[in-house]
Amino acid sequence: METRVINLVKKASQIGELHKYKLVAELNDLQFKLVKAKREFVWHSHAETDEAFFVVEGRMQLEFRDRVFELEKGELIVVPKGVEHRPICETECTVLLIEPKGTANTGMAGGPMTDSSLERI
Amino acid sequence: METRVINLVKKASQIGELHKYKLVAELNDLQFKLVKAKREFVWHSHAETDEAFFVVEGRMQLEFRDRVFELEKGELIVVPKGVEHRPICETECTVLLIEPKGTANTGMAGGPMTDSSLERI
Repeated sequence: METRVINLVKKASQIGELHKYKLVAELNDLQFKLVKAKREFVWHSHAETDEAFFVVEGRMQLEFRDRVFELEKGELIVVPKGVEHRPICETECTVLLIEPKGTANTGMAGGPMTDSSLERI
Repeated sequence: METRVINLVKKASQIGELHKYKLVAELNDLQFKLVKAKREFVWHSHAETDEAFFVVEGRMQLEFRDRVFELEKGELIVVPKGVEHRPICETECTVLLIEPKGTANTGMAGGPMTDSSLERI
């Protein structure tokens, strides 16, 4: 990927559809993926990797089995590998995910919410 | 590191000194480091890794040998491994760096701007 400045809010404005992950940057084996969402996601975990969420627009909840984290714009959280979690955007939010190439959005759960399109924007 | 929500601007407000890198999160072998800066940094490169810069407050320039990138708050860039670069904050800025554990801020250059304190905040 060529070296470029990525304005996350401007990139978000180029996303016209919900729930489709868009590749905006790569660092070593990691990918930076932007997604617009308005849904309750499926409970899942990633057996092989941690996963970072950074809220670019709006707000979200990140449920764990034993607690709920509330995240607003400008806030970051790292979900440890193997820990079950469920992201919820009650209102439309834009989130930047940071995780290794090939990480499935639904992790070990699979199912109809799985998106492997990953268009580069 | 325990799972927690990290508000980057609030974390920045806890940093009282310039040019000391502060550890705010880890993801697999990567570290997320916040630094407040107002200086022209040394030309350097990282032979083994890419390096991400995300501007949390203010603005910065990132010089490459053949061009200069201007970054504002909310903007991200990934410097490819092995590429010489020089960050410049003419006015005070806060930057989040994402890179593998053990990456020296001055890379292959070393010298007096090297900071290995990395306090966790």
